[in-house]
Amino acid sequence: MRAARYYGKGDIRIENDVEEERCGEGKVRIAPSYVGICGTDLHEFTGGPTFAPLKPHPITKETLPITLGHEFSGVVTEVGPGVNTLQVGQHVVVQPTLYCGTCSACLAGFENVCYKGGFIGLSGSGGGLSDSVVVPAGSVLKLPGKIPLDIGALVEPLSVAWHAISAAHLTQESTVLVLGGGPIGLAVVQCLVALKTHKIILSEVSKSRQRFAREFGAHHVIDPKTNDLVAASKELSGSDGPDVVFDCAGVPASLATACQAVKARGTVVNVAIWEKEVPFQPNMLVFKEAKYTAVLGYQREDFQAVIDHLANGSLKPEKMITSKIRLEDLVEGGIKALINDKESHVKILVEVGGK
Amino acid sequence: MRAARYYGKGDIRIENDVEEERCGEGKVRIAPSYVGICGTDLHEFTGGPTFAPLKPHPITKETLPITLGHEFSGVVTEVGPGVNTLQVGQHVVVQPTLYCGTCSACLAGFENVCYKGGFIGLSGSGGGLSDSVVVPAGSVLKLPGKIPLDIGALVEPLSVAWHAISAAHLTQESTVLVLGGGPIGLAVVQCLVALKTHKIILSEVSKSRQRFAREFGAHHVIDPKTNDLVAASKELSGSDGPDVVFDCAGVPASLATACQAVKARGTVVNVAIWEKEVPFQPNMLVFKEAKYTAVLGYQREDFQAVIDHLANGSLKPEKMITSKIRLEDLVEGGIKALINDKESHVKILVEVGGK
Ligand SMILES: NC(=O)c1ccc[n+]([C@@H]2O[C@H](COP(=O)([O-])OP(=O)(O)OC[C@H]3O[C@@H](n4cnc5c(N)ncnc54)[C@H](O)[C@@H]3O)[C@@H](O)[C@H]2O)c1
Ligand SMILES: NC(=O)c1ccc[n+]([C@@H]2O[C@H](COP(=O)([O-])OP(=O)(O)OC[C@H]3O[C@@H](n4cnc5c(N)ncnc54)[C@H](O)[C@@H]3O)[C@@H](O)[C@H]2O)c1
Ligand SMILES: [Zn+2]
Ligand SMILES: [Zn+2]
Ligand SMILES: [Zn+2]
Ligand SMILES: [Zn+2]
Repeated sequence: MRAARYYGKGDIRIENDVEEERCGEGKVRIAPSYVGICGTDLHEFTGGPTFAPLKPHPITKETLPITLGHEFSGVVTEVGPGVNTLQVGQHVVVQPTLYCGTCSACLAGFENVCYKGGFIGLSGSGGGLSDSVVVPAGSVLKLPGKIPLDIGALVEPLSVAWHAISAAHLTQESTVLVLGGGPIGLAVVQCLVALKTHKIILSEVSKSRQRFAREFGAHHVIDPKTNDLVAASKELSGSDGPDVVFDCAGVPASLATACQAVKARGTVVNVAIWEKEVPFQPNMLVFKEAKYTAVLGYQREDFQAVIDHLANGSLKPEKMITSKIRLEDLVEGGIKALINDKESHVKILVEVGGK
Repeated sequence: MRAARYYGKGDIRIENDVEEERCGEGKVRIAPSYVGICGTDLHEFTGGPTFAPLKPHPITKETLPITLGHEFSGVVTEVGPGVNTLQVGQHVVVQPTLYCGTCSACLAGFENVCYKGGFIGLSGSGGGLSDSVVVPAGSVLKLPGKIPLDIGALVEPLSVAWHAISAAHLTQESTVLVLGGGPIGLAVVQCLVALKTHKIILSEVSKSRQRFAREFGAHHVIDPKTNDLVAASKELSGSDGPDVVFDCAGVPASLATACQAVKARGTVVNVAIWEKEVPFQPNMLVFKEAKYTAVLGYQREDFQAVIDHLANGSLKPEKMITSKIRLEDLVEGGIKALINDKESHVKILVEVGGK
């Protein structure tokens, strides 16, 4: 079968003769339909391997090369023994979380922070960027008929956002500041809109991404280069600052702004992954008793909540899809297109298995 | 009357002719008995003014010089009009929090993070290091007869610890790591013991403070210079790290250790006040979805809880008092003694009004 294989920094190969895995007990085979390319994939290409295993991954036992693609929808093509919740032909999305099931985090129900964890499409176990992938039935969620398969590929990034929001104890009356209007920041804005959040302020430096934020329903969009974001967000909150700040930018300026802008007893939710250490003055939190909390990935209920909100129409992420390409064009039309012109794109989808 | 007046860095004067404030409506006059000297006082002396107001404080309207002393017990000597909860002769402690009552933090019930806040004994409004201080009746708590007045002067630092613990959602089964065994770290240990916390690990570099920690009931005391604290605390927790880490040290190493040691989904409670920015890698929290939360001061219920636990004997802080001095000896026998030999002391009390 075809598969996009990651060999290391700068080296992704579309191979035509990759062996298909057997569909064993409790597993299902899926023909991926659409696969989103995300910042993590770009990082692996430009600076990796980071997630991709150089030594055997504790769960998959695999090392490079691995198949890419962790944001995907598809169609069930085979059902392994013991699986009776899914049938061939079912449209599905895959929650790519890999977890050990026995560490203290898993036992406490937080598989997303499993001490040995990983992701299908980054750590081995196949990936969406291939003609066929075999996954545990438990990591598959049904896609209702009214949700098209291309929208299904957006469930994963939307679930990152949904999960981040669930860490924040928001109400509809909350004022929220989102830093960064990339795919994740825009997903946070959409989920906040779906939750009918009263006041959503987005900060972004890129003009085209500011436009996307407005289209997705941010009530106020601020350019932090030409505005005093801390002062502006305090004024817009009609109080002493936003209740919650989501850092989806992950730069030194966003860390400082988040901590300065948040109101007393408020919460900063860090969604970003950081490349290196940054300067931090904890007093910014101390004198306000503010919380700084971090989120990683998602849980099954986040995937389900996103699917439910897509089905009932309160999440309408169509405009996130800024391009669709073929698997053969992954590197040039996908990875490199994003590296060279991130700003005019939100999500590029790879059409692997068609409709 | 006598009062210890702070004029600025290195300049504390014991004056004998300071005017007494009038005891107006809703106020009470207190003759301070014992007053604790704390790190904040030292900081004002060595590097201040930090808290002490150079321009009129928004609440007290006062500027330097101000009277020092924010950790104190005393005896009521006069009761202003409209006060019917307190009588002359009553033994009391004062919660020194100053707050505006009208900002969003105050209105939400978090006077300790009032946007204009301050402290009696640091921001104006008199202080414990004087023969007489007039305070709002609402900031006074009764000291039951069985709690001696010298122990009363320890209620304030113990309340800092009690408040910090209340931010952490601990259970008796929790494993807790405390970084730093100064007065605050030792107060946290004592409050944890009072709450019957299952496993208390304390990290401290000073030998004499390690000894204090053992005496106050820490179950394990670790020297981070000669041990791998992260590994040791993981092993002692019998799991993947402590549930909660209290940073009462406030140095770059303690920030990193706290974030590395805490288990997945655990909480770091920062109690320390920081002198400057420090390097921070948020990924330490991200991959574990850990929380970093900060606390400041206390609320009235923390003071009351500490008094209740002192009264029922579950808090026994006598050994924190390592010296008692006269007001006239404040600078030499108190401030400078602590600066030159912090480690052999926990609390030096100034005996202002005797028993
Ligand atoms: N926690 C998780 O599970 C998880 C999952 C996916 C992605 N992420 C992380 O979330 C972050 C966002 O992902 P993304 O794909 O949207 O990344 P992205 O790089 O496309 O978006 C970041 C955006 O922030 C903007 N920005 C930069 N500096 C800014 C500033 N000072 N103020 C405001 N905006 C600023 C950039 O212009 C960009 O649009 C990344 O760090 C990514 O690694 C985390
Ligand atoms: N949040 C609040 O409301 C509040 C109130 C009072 C005090 N504080 C702050 O709490 C902190 C502690 O106060 P304190 O009076 O106990 O201070 P302290 O300086 O007496 O104690 C700090 C202790 O940490 C130890 N230490 C230094 N480096 C260490 C390391 N790497 N590992 C372990 N221990 C280390 C020191 O030896 C010292 O004993 C200070 O920063 C103080 O400003 C905060
Ligand atoms: Zn992704
Ligand atoms: Zn696990
Ligand atoms: Zn103090
Ligand atoms: Zn206030």
